[in-house]
Amino acid sequence: MQVIPLGGLGEIGKNMTAVRQESGIVLIDAGMSFPDEEMPGIDLVLPDFSYLREHRDELKGIVLTHGHEDHVGALPYLLREFNVPVYGTKLTLGLVRPKLAEHGIKKGDLREIKAGDRQKLGGFGMEFINVNHSIPDAVAVALRTNAGLIVFSGDYKIDLTPIEGEPMDLNRYAALGQEGVLAYFGDSTNSERPGFVPSERVVNETFNQVFERATGRIIVASFASHIHRVNQVVEAAKAHGRLVGVTGRSMIRNVQIARELGYMDLPQSMYVDQRDINKVPDSDIVILTTGSQGEPMAALSRIAAGQHRTIEAGAGDIVIVSAHPIPGNERGVSRTINSLMKRGAEVLYTPLSRVHVSGHAAQEEQKIVLSLLKPKYLVPVHGEYRMQKHHKDTAISMGIPEENILILENGEPVEFEGGEARRLETVSSGMFLVDAGSVADNSDAIMRERQQLSEEGMFIVVARINSKSGELLGPPDVISRGFVDPQAQNGLVDESVATVTKTLERTAQRHVTDWSELKKAIRKDLAGLLSEKTRKRPIILPLIVEV
Amino acid sequence: MQVIPLGGLGEIGKNMTAVRQESGIVLIDAGMSFPDEEMPGIDLVLPDFSYLREHRDELKGIVLTHGHEDHVGALPYLLREFNVPVYGTKLTLGLVRPKLAEHGIKKGDLREIKAGDRQKLGGFGMEFINVNHSIPDAVAVALRTNAGLIVFSGDYKIDLTPIEGEPMDLNRYAALGQEGVLAYFGDSTNSERPGFVPSERVVNETFNQVFERATGRIIVASFASHIHRVNQVVEAAKAHGRLVGVTGRSMIRNVQIARELGYMDLPQSMYVDQRDINKVPDSDIVILTTGSQGEPMAALSRIAAGQHRTIEAGAGDIVIVSAHPIPGNERGVSRTINSLMKRGAEVLYTPLSRVHVSGHAAQEEQKIVLSLLKPKYLVPVHGEYRMQKHHKDTAISMGIPEENILILENGEPVEFEGGEARRLETVSSGMFLVDAGSVADNSDAIMRERQQLSEEGMFIVVARINSKSGELLGPPDVISRGFVDPQAQNGLVDESVATVTKTLERTAQRHVTDWSELKKAIRKDLAGLLSEKTRKRPIILPLIVEV
Repeated sequence: MQVIPLGGLGEIGKNMTAVRQESGIVLIDAGMSFPDEEMPGIDLVLPDFSYLREHRDELKGIVLTHGHEDHVGALPYLLREFNVPVYGTKLTLGLVRPKLAEHGIKKGDLREIKAGDRQKLGGFGMEFINVNHSIPDAVAVALRTNAGLIVFSGDYKIDLTPIEGEPMDLNRYAALGQEGVLAYFGDSTNSERPGFVPSERVVNETFNQVFERATGRIIVASFASHIHRVNQVVEAAKAHGRLVGVTGRSMIRNVQIARELGYMDLPQSMYVDQRDINKVPDSDIVILTTGSQGEPMAALSRIAAGQHRTIEAGAGDIVIVSAHPIPGNERGVSRTINSLMKRGAEVLYTPLSRVHVSGHAAQEEQKIVLSLLKPKYLVPVHGEYRMQKHHKDTAISMGIPEENILILENGEPVEFEGGEARRLETVSSGMFLVDAGSVADNSDAIMRERQQLSEEGMFIVVARINSKSGELLGPPDVISRGFVDPQAQNGLVDESVATVTKTLERTAQRHVTDWSELKKAIRKDLAGLLSEKTRKRPIILPLIVEV
Repeated sequence: MQVIPLGGLGEIGKNMTAVRQESGIVLIDAGMSFPDEEMPGIDLVLPDFSYLREHRDELKGIVLTHGHEDHVGALPYLLREFNVPVYGTKLTLGLVRPKLAEHGIKKGDLREIKAGDRQKLGGFGMEFINVNHSIPDAVAVALRTNAGLIVFSGDYKIDLTPIEGEPMDLNRYAALGQEGVLAYFGDSTNSERPGFVPSERVVNETFNQVFERATGRIIVASFASHIHRVNQVVEAAKAHGRLVGVTGRSMIRNVQIARELGYMDLPQSMYVDQRDINKVPDSDIVILTTGSQGEPMAALSRIAAGQHRTIEAGAGDIVIVSAHPIPGNERGVSRTINSLMKRGAEVLYTPLSRVHVSGHAAQEEQKIVLSLLKPKYLVPVHGEYRMQKHHKDTAISMGIPEENILILENGEPVEFEGGEARRLETVSSGMFLVDAGSVADNSDAIMRERQQLSEEGMFIVVARINSKSGELLGPPDVISRGFVDPQAQNGLVDESVATVTKTLERTAQRHVTDWSELKKAIRKDLAGLLSEKTRKRPIILPLIVEV
C-alpha cells in the first residue's frame, strides 16, 4: 500500500493525496490554490494530474473531506479527464454541484455520505468521522488498507461547543486508536500556534455586543464558505430584530445552498435581496458580504471604494472584517480597512477585536488527537515546511519516535508493508496554472516571461531586409513598452536604432541571410547597449521583414 | 505659519513635511518608500518634489530626525535639485554621507547637531530632543515659529532601559508642555497596539539563552540600520567568546560606519570578514546578515537557497530572524524560514520566539507623550489611515477635543494663526517611481502598462502594406508574448491572422492609407477576437511596414 501526496505538502492549498494498493487508487481531496505575486494574470493553481493519468485505470474514486476550495476546487478539472465516483457529505456535494455545472459537467457520479458511515471503494474500507472546521459537514477519513488502518484528518479543530452539529468525534478516534492506527496524515496549518483554538462560539459574544450598540448599518465580511460564521450573523440578526441583506456572488450562492440544504435557518421574511437593501432602514439590517481578504473585485472592496452598485457605508455604520488575512493579502485587507474608515465607518478587525477564530487545530488539539489515535507513523500534511516541522516537534514531545514522523513533499510517496514505512522514488508533482480557462503546461517559462515583461520591459525591432543580399533597407524601427523614462527612452531609441543598424551592416558584409542568426546578433548587441545604459534586461523581439 | 505634509501620511514610508512662514521653509525629513506588488520593476518610491520646486527660493534647509531610509532615502535625489544645508545627528549624517557619495554628491552641506542643541534656521528656532527608536541618535524636533511652538516626534518609543544612550528626554517634553505646544505631529505607526512596547533589552535575554545552548553557528538577520540590535549580538558574542562575521552589503557598510563613529564597540580582533568566515569553527562565530525581510537577493535568502558565495547553514546551526515582516513581505520571509529549516537549521522568529521588539510607541507611550506635551492640536503622522485614526482615538480618550485632531493626507496643508488651525487648499503631492536610476514622471501610465503586459500579455501584428494603395502584401505576422497555452495560442494565431487580413482587406477597399486609422481598425477587431476567445485584453501593437 502506497500513499502518494500530490498537493498540499510544503504549501498551503491544493490538497490532494492518492492511496494505492493492488485493488486500486482512492484519491483524498482535489483542491486548488490561489496564485501568488509571482504569477501575474493567473486565475488559479491546480495540482499536477500526471501521476493519475499514468495510473488512469486504477483510479476508483475521489473522497472529499469538506467543501473548501483548497480541497474541492480542482474537481471540475479532474472530472473532465476521469469519470469516477465522488464521495462527500451533503453540504460538500451541495457546494460542488454548481461548480461542476459551471464547467459543463452535468452528470458527475456524486455519492452522499455522512459522518459515521462506512463504505467500500476500490478494495478499501472507508469510514467517515465527524470533525469541526470553519465549514459544517467536515469529516476525517479512515481507510482500512491491505497494510493497515490509516487516518486522514482533513482540516479540523476540536470545538466542544460548536455553533451547530456535534463536537468532533473523539470517541471514534479513541476506538480507532484501540484498533491500531498505522499512519496518521494530520492537518499542520496551525501547528506553530501553542494552546487550543477557541470555540467558534466566542465570536458570538462580539457579534452580540456590536448588534447591541449599533444604530446604523452592520456589514459583516467573511469567507462565503464559512457557513458557521454566517449563521452566527443570522442568529444575531434574529436576536436583535434586523433583516439580513446579502451581496457578493459567492456569498449569495452559498447562502442559497446552505438554506436549501437545511444548513441555515434564514426565513424568507428576513432575507433581503441586494437590490432591495436600500429600502430597509440602516438600523434594521445587517449585510453579509464577500471581500474579507481585500480582493479588489469583491463586494466589500467595492463598498470601500464607493463603487458598489447599491450599497454604501459611512458614518454610523459598523463593518466587521470577520476573517484573518491569508499571508500575501495583508496589504489588500489594509487598503479596504483604510478606505472604509475614511468614509467614516467604524471597522472591527483582528487582532484588535475578537471577530474571528481559526478553524485549524493548535498544538494542544494536535496532542489530543495524537494521544487518542496513537499512530505508529505521523505524516504532517496541509502546511508549509515550517508548519510540518512544528507538527513533528509536537509529536516528538508526545513520544512518537522521530524516525516515525515523515515530513514529505508533494510527489514523495511512502510504501507501507509489514507495519513499516519506506520512501519510494519521487513521482511527477507540481502545479498547473489556469489562465482564463486554459491550463498551462509550460507555467515556469510563461511566468518568467510575464515577470520579465513587467519588470524589465520589452524592445521590439522591425528591420526591412533584402532577402537576397541580407542588406538593411532604411533604418530599423524600434518600439518599447514598459520603459519608465520617456525622455531617456527617446535618446535610447536613437541609440538602439544606431546599434541595430551597425549590427545589420556588419552581418550584411558577411552576407548573412540566415534570419535566426541575424536575430541573435540583434538581440546580443541591443541587450548589451540596454544593460549598459539602463541596467535593465528587457525582452528583445527582432522582427525581420523580407522585401 | 503653514505645515505642508508631502509624504508619510496615509501610508508607511517616504516621510517628508514642510514648515513654512514668511522667513522661509524648513523641511523635516526626506524619506523614500519601497515599491508594492503593483509596481513591477521599480527600485524605490520618492515623494513628489513639485511643491518644493514651486517654492524653491524659500527652502532654507532640511532636518533629519534619524538615519532610516523612510526618513533620509530621498535626500540624494532632493540635493540634486536643492542646494541647502542638512541638519542631523552624527550617526544620521554618517549613514547619509556614503549614499550622497554614491549619487555623485560630493560636498553636501551637512551640519551635525546633537540632542539638546538649539539652532536657528530660516527664521525658525530649532531644538532637538533625544528619543528612543530602533536606531541610535534619533531625535524629535521642536520648532519655534511665528505662530507658536510645534513638535515633530520623529519615529520614537519610550525605552527607559535602552541598550545605549539615554532614555527618551521626557523632562524636556514636560518643559515644552509647560511652555505651551500649539501642535504635535506624532508617530502613529504602532497606534493600533495597546500597552507599552517592551524595552529593546528584552531581546538580550533571548540572545543570551541562544548563545548559551548553541553548539554550531549562530546567524542573526536584522535590519542593517538596527545598530542597537547588532550591538546586542556583539555583546552576546563577547560574553560567550564568539567572533563576529558580517555579510550583506548594507550590513557590512553600517557596521563599518557604526564602528568608525563610535556607535559600536567591536574590536578588530573579533571582526571576521565574510571571506574568512569558513576559517572559524562553527561554535566560535556568530554571523550578522541582511535579509530579515526575505528580500530575494539579500544574504540570508542566498544562504537559505544554498547560493551564498561562502556561507552555508545546516543541521546544528541556529538562525535568528530578528525582525518583524513588513506587510507585503510575509511570503518572502516564510520562504526563507522554510528553506533554512529544510537545510536542517533551527530557525527562531516572531512571534514564536522573543527575538524582536518594535521601535515605535504603542498606545500607553502615546498617552504619556500627549500628557507631557499637552498640545492644543494633534496631527497623527507616519501611518496609514487606520493608524492615524487610532492615534486620534487615543488622543480623544486623553481629553483632546476631537476638532483639534487633524487627520491629514499628503498634500493637505494646515495654517496656524492666532492659535487656531485652518485647512488650506491641497497642493501637489504623490509619488515618483525610480526605475534603474531614472525617475518616472508618468508613473501611473507605465505601471498600468506593465501590469497589462504581465497579466494580459501582448500581441504584435506586422503587416506589409503597399504605401500607395493601402493593400496588404501577403499574410500579416502575428507574435504573442505572455500567453499561456501554446496549443490554444496556435489556433489563436491563425484566427488572428485571418481577422487582421479581413480588417485590412476592408480598409484597402475603402482606400484607407492613414496608418493610424489602419492601426486603430486592427486593434479593435483583434481585441474583439481575443476577448471573446480568451477573456484576455492584451496590449495589441500593430506595426505597418511600408513597401
